[in-house]
Amino acid sequence: MSEKEELFEETLSSEHIYDGVLLHVRRDEIALPNGNRSVREWLHQGRAVCVVPVTEDGNVIMERQFRYPLGRVITEIPAGKLDSPEEDPLEGAKRELREETGIVADNWTDLGEYEPAAAYTSEHIYMYLATGLHQQERHLDEDEFLNVFEAPLKDLVEDIMAGKITDGKTVCAILKAARIYGV
Amino acid sequence: MSEKEELFEETLSSEHIYDGVLLHVRRDEIALPNGNRSVREWLHQGRAVCVVPVTEDGNVIMERQFRYPLGRVITEIPAGKLDSPEEDPLEGAKRELREETGIVADNWTDLGEYEPAAAYTSEHIYMYLATGLHQQERHLDEDEFLNVFEAPLKDLVEDIMAGKITDGKTVCAILKAARIYGV
Repeated sequence: MSEKEELFEETLSSEHIYDGVLLHVRRDEIALPNGNRSVREWLHQGRAVCVVPVTEDGNVIMERQFRYPLGRVITEIPAGKLDSPEEDPLEGAKRELREETGIVADNWTDLGEYEPAAAYTSEHIYMYLATGLHQQERHLDEDEFLNVFEAPLKDLVEDIMAGKITDGKTVCAILKAARIYGV
Repeated sequence: MSEKEELFEETLSSEHIYDGVLLHVRRDEIALPNGNRSVREWLHQGRAVCVVPVTEDGNVIMERQFRYPLGRVITEIPAGKLDSPEEDPLEGAKRELREETGIVADNWTDLGEYEPAAAYTSEHIYMYLATGLHQQERHLDEDEFLNVFEAPLKDLVEDIMAGKITDGKTVCAILKAARIYGV
């Protein structure tokens, strides 16, 4: 039996529980590999992007932002959702970096994809490393609130290893960037 | 003005959109720092655990599992939800590792927490490194399907850097373990 046959879950029906501005909640009836029936509750989410912008001095442009589900301000890298299913991920990353920090970058390196929670969301996030940074004007939405700061890549890695930075995309992308920089 | 005052979002009301077996969907009205009102759709989720179990030979015990929201079989580390809000995370990690792989471990190292998607879920995952492994009997639920395999930590890091392993908790925990092992 192939791995797919051993593990595959077949969709029997799919119900739209909630279609909001941000979240799209589904409840599907499925057939398990042994023929038993079960239910999968999940989020049908789109794609997003995040960026590790590194200066010539080896500093990373970071953000502090209140994250409502966690109820606190967290440290994270610039990130955001793609504007549409058609938007190119790299173009989206350039747009988000520009909007949130005012920075444009000459060089972009693909850091791969990040899937935050395979058990319940289809979202995936494209990660990039950006260098050759130029500061321009910032264009935050009126209702978007975040503080931008710079920190050495080395210090961020230490904070990650000490458990002080816990945001998933940030940990993945920074630790990948650290391996590229040999930090 | 303090960072908290600059960035804080105040809850005005909270609506239960859906309380399922796995997902708990909320829709809250909030006041932004500028006084404007907005909406936050989010998941009120519990806690979970994941484990990087490393053998004496430097191999990691990994899993292959069909993840319905992604529609494919993915490579990930052993993981699962805590049984209750009271369950101790380390005890939960020991239980999940034993259930999914049949392995008990002598030594447990805290790898910190992982928050998968701060924009829309309150979930956080406790990550552990486990060594001194002993194989015992496996106790999978009848309706749980996953394949267990071993791979060198070094190869997994290469697969992560090449973008072949994309599961968030797996990337975070393996890259943290790799730094500890100097791999």
